[in-house]
Amino acid sequence: MSMRSHTCGQVTESLIGQEITLSGWVNRRRDHGGVIFIDLRDHQGFVQVVCDPDRPEMFVLAEQVRNEFCIQVKGLVRARPAGTENNDLVSGKIEVLCHSLVILNASITPPFQLEDENLSETTRLTHRVLDLRRPQMQKNLRLRYNVAMECRRYLDAAGFIDIETPMLTKSTPEGARDYLVPSRVHDGQFFALPQSPQLFKQLLMVAGFDRYYQITKCFRDEDLRADRQPEFTQIDCETAFLDELEIRELFENMIRHIFKITMNVELPNPFPTMPYSEGMARFGSDKPDLRVNFEFTELTDLMKDVDFKVFSGAANQEGGRVVGLCVPGGAEISRSEIDDYTQFVAIYGAKGLAWIKVNSVAEGRNGLQSPIVKNLHDAAIEGILKRTGAKDGDIIFFGADKEKVVNDAIGGLRLKIGHSAWGKEHGLSTEGWKPLWVVDFPMFEYDEDNARWVACHHPFTSPKDEHMQYLESSPGKCLAKAYDMVLNGSEIGGGSVRIHQEAVQSQVFRALKIGAEEAQAKFGFLLDALQYGAPPHGGIAFGLDRIVTMMTGAESIRDVIAFPKTQRAQCLLTQAPSPVDERQLKELHIRLRQAAPAA
Amino acid sequence: MSMRSHTCGQVTESLIGQEITLSGWVNRRRDHGGVIFIDLRDHQGFVQVVCDPDRPEMFVLAEQVRNEFCIQVKGLVRARPAGTENNDLVSGKIEVLCHSLVILNASITPPFQLEDENLSETTRLTHRVLDLRRPQMQKNLRLRYNVAMECRRYLDAAGFIDIETPMLTKSTPEGARDYLVPSRVHDGQFFALPQSPQLFKQLLMVAGFDRYYQITKCFRDEDLRADRQPEFTQIDCETAFLDELEIRELFENMIRHIFKITMNVELPNPFPTMPYSEGMARFGSDKPDLRVNFEFTELTDLMKDVDFKVFSGAANQEGGRVVGLCVPGGAEISRSEIDDYTQFVAIYGAKGLAWIKVNSVAEGRNGLQSPIVKNLHDAAIEGILKRTGAKDGDIIFFGADKEKVVNDAIGGLRLKIGHSAWGKEHGLSTEGWKPLWVVDFPMFEYDEDNARWVACHHPFTSPKDEHMQYLESSPGKCLAKAYDMVLNGSEIGGGSVRIHQEAVQSQVFRALKIGAEEAQAKFGFLLDALQYGAPPHGGIAFGLDRIVTMMTGAESIRDVIAFPKTQRAQCLLTQAPSPVDERQLKELHIRLRQAAPAA
Repeated sequence: MSMRSHTCGQVTESLIGQEITLSGWVNRRRDHGGVIFIDLRDHQGFVQVVCDPDRPEMFVLAEQVRNEFCIQVKGLVRARPAGTENNDLVSGKIEVLCHSLVILNASITPPFQLEDENLSETTRLTHRVLDLRRPQMQKNLRLRYNVAMECRRYLDAAGFIDIETPMLTKSTPEGARDYLVPSRVHDGQFFALPQSPQLFKQLLMVAGFDRYYQITKCFRDEDLRADRQPEFTQIDCETAFLDELEIRELFENMIRHIFKITMNVELPNPFPTMPYSEGMARFGSDKPDLRVNFEFTELTDLMKDVDFKVFSGAANQEGGRVVGLCVPGGAEISRSEIDDYTQFVAIYGAKGLAWIKVNSVAEGRNGLQSPIVKNLHDAAIEGILKRTGAKDGDIIFFGADKEKVVNDAIGGLRLKIGHSAWGKEHGLSTEGWKPLWVVDFPMFEYDEDNARWVACHHPFTSPKDEHMQYLESSPGKCLAKAYDMVLNGSEIGGGSVRIHQEAVQSQVFRALKIGAEEAQAKFGFLLDALQYGAPPHGGIAFGLDRIVTMMTGAESIRDVIAFPKTQRAQCLLTQAPSPVDERQLKELHIRLRQAAPAA
Repeated sequence: MSMRSHTCGQVTESLIGQEITLSGWVNRRRDHGGVIFIDLRDHQGFVQVVCDPDRPEMFVLAEQVRNEFCIQVKGLVRARPAGTENNDLVSGKIEVLCHSLVILNASITPPFQLEDENLSETTRLTHRVLDLRRPQMQKNLRLRYNVAMECRRYLDAAGFIDIETPMLTKSTPEGARDYLVPSRVHDGQFFALPQSPQLFKQLLMVAGFDRYYQITKCFRDEDLRADRQPEFTQIDCETAFLDELEIRELFENMIRHIFKITMNVELPNPFPTMPYSEGMARFGSDKPDLRVNFEFTELTDLMKDVDFKVFSGAANQEGGRVVGLCVPGGAEISRSEIDDYTQFVAIYGAKGLAWIKVNSVAEGRNGLQSPIVKNLHDAAIEGILKRTGAKDGDIIFFGADKEKVVNDAIGGLRLKIGHSAWGKEHGLSTEGWKPLWVVDFPMFEYDEDNARWVACHHPFTSPKDEHMQYLESSPGKCLAKAYDMVLNGSEIGGGSVRIHQEAVQSQVFRALKIGAEEAQAKFGFLLDALQYGAPPHGGIAFGLDRIVTMMTGAESIRDVIAFPKTQRAQCLLTQAPSPVDERQLKELHIRLRQAAPAA
């Protein structure tokens, strides 16, 4: 190639004595003893270039270059003088003696140093092009690519084919808010951007494609949190003629393969499997972080008749729960730290944080230090110590409230303590990767506000065969063939076996109080398709952004997306969204509710 | 796997004597001599299943199945009785003697036979799920997948990485019409769906990613023709540090590789290269179909002083052109066919179609049969015969008008005659694949209506180095580093070396009369990025839909898209676009100009 013979990453000792051509960016220029040293950077690495004044034509140019100039260098690869090697670099044993230099493009002074680790996100996103030049961002996006490509290779080998589904689809205002696209041709009508290809992939199964996947953008117009973007990428998969266990095995193997190939990490084989009910009982969570190795103790039944009203009230309340969280060695946690934890659980609605420090189990009540012990009768105390298995030097925290508050608050506290510096020192959490399957989700949850049952997963999820009977009579008892893949406390994938029979699908719609007419209007094309010999099928969707964020250890998914939006759903680089011409709106048959803002 | 041990495509003689399990659809059921024969179909093929009444439990079920039932069959593979083999099928030598049968899902009677080749597009798109079950559609979408996956493999090996660019971008009302997406968070502002990732891929080059690709959806809200869809898929590629020849070689190899792997077709190596000016001179086209082997003869200079006003008028007019199209053996074309061709060229604005039948070259003027010969002087006639190289039995058609009308009309006529049944019989066109590069495009073309120069390719295309001087002084003379890949008369890919210097980019904007302020408002982020040492870069984008349409020989790109829109930009399956709730519009700060249509 004319502009380079090698990339910076390819230059090692094996090239000593050869003349090579490199193209890249000036990462740094140093003048030292009349000689100019240039750290040349490209997408693969760094090479030190030495510019000697004995080639004046070249040297004049070398004097002009500044950081981020794009240059081409021709020169001789030679060993660095003894003592000046840099073992941190692949090319650290060599340098290139510059014979000629071409300034391919100059650069004005960048608004920040690429090495600066303390840039605000606003600065980084406004100058995203420079931000992306940083080796960490290059690495993140290359890892993202490798993950996606390895998925494709794995799925290809397993007989899946990528089929594109539409981006301009029908609005079905269930679940999250749709992004809408006004139609020019059809006055007053709108497309919606897909929240997921769920229905299309099911239709492809009915159409006989057997195995489908797509790595595709999905859209949800929701208020954004740190790990959300208006557009995000799903690895979306569906297969016919496999049951739940077969589907899970196939995709568990995929994730294991990807971690092995892209990160050289061996995930456990097989992943542990945990029913939803067990996750809630032991960790207050349907995505338990198994790196933290202490858990809830159920105490509800024990606390019904204690004097302490906070406990007995919750224990006797419909939907109330009392749990203990025994933290090994936690008796050394100070009062001020306990106060901090009390504030922390308040975020989840907990009205306080009761605790017992266990100084000596053998001494029973007298060996305990706690504001609440006096209100607990002996049987309760004995039960607490026995069930938690507390040892001398432990602390037991308590949650007593409505089930959701207890689960969220004490679940959150478990993670906070487990991952704290103190928790790590005391072996309460481990490094590394702890995947699991959470299975046996409920079909429905009760929506108190609207006094009706709603689908936990989505309304196309199949009930368990033996729970079909509960569908309309006792929806709360009905479990689903749904499964989530959880890694280190994050849901990285979720799926289910789908309903493939029209009669069952209609029954589920009835359980959800979706009338026949509404079902027909919204999902008629699915009900229709199910009548033509739809095959048994199921699938899963993985969140690519989240998986790669976890792999890179990045703080935000914005660090694994080339051009992300801010939490206010703006692109600071291009200034989207932006006002548009009145002419455009007219063609789309819409107008603004208010006068247009200043452009 | 529990629901099947093999797919239908895997069942051959090698399995004779084995019991296997298949799952699939009833393609046809025949009752013959008290035995039921089921043609079982899956995504890979067909297998004949024989249901004998001596297994009554199974036979009762077999009697119930109808076309498109989804069933599971367990049975013994055995050789078909001699004389009943079907050599058209992979499984034509065997059949499966059914031991047990499970009806996985029944089907109501389909609205059409899957074998029916005469369905209206409305029927096919309304019942798309059934339409997609047809083996041809299965084949089309699998070929599409293979093409895309082979691209990925090729690009991966060449160091390209797939980087996702945003779907919610900024509206820049140049070129085609944008699809707009109202912002909920930013009152009165809009995102646009990308017409292409052009600017983002250039930004990625500036960011140092070296080689980028993406197989991605692009959107144009234009009135649709047979080969257009509101959303279409581009194989979008960009590389830094390569020049035009290197880029073309890389992607020519890619296309050759894909045709070889997916179609077992050997494309020529190298592709011929033709300057834009030559394409217009010889074929009146910037995407000449080289399968047709006769071409234009330039006559403009010869016709300036003839009596025939149609010719002399066009020849003397600024921007006029006169050409001949000599069709070998065409003297046998009848008068009524000539009348049809005259009507055909009228579509392109031609006011008539002059012609000369060459009965005998040796006899000169007397050997010609034509209404116009009497108005042409001897030198003109001699020139026509000499330049066209006409032989006895040929016909020469003429175009004389504004250049564009001549090129379109006579260019169209060339294809029409070349590909007609008569043309094929007479060897005027060949089967197979004729790729070429068209290069040296003009930078600008003059827009008469708005009296200004516009970019031929797009305003980020680099001028040729030696034409930089013409940029502002004589834009019409300035050629670009732009190139199209053309196959059988269709542009399948187009690209260019881009401008990588801010000063040149600003100069091009000035040539296009885009003021500094407008340029900053629309493309400020690009101009900004170019100032930080942007590398030399260029790329290309291929139209995946079109390539696969050509490969499959389909009539419409709708046959290679799973869920396409109609020419009225509607999805007949899901009924998108559709009316939306007033609440949704309110949240988006827009209202309809007219009352909402009935839902």
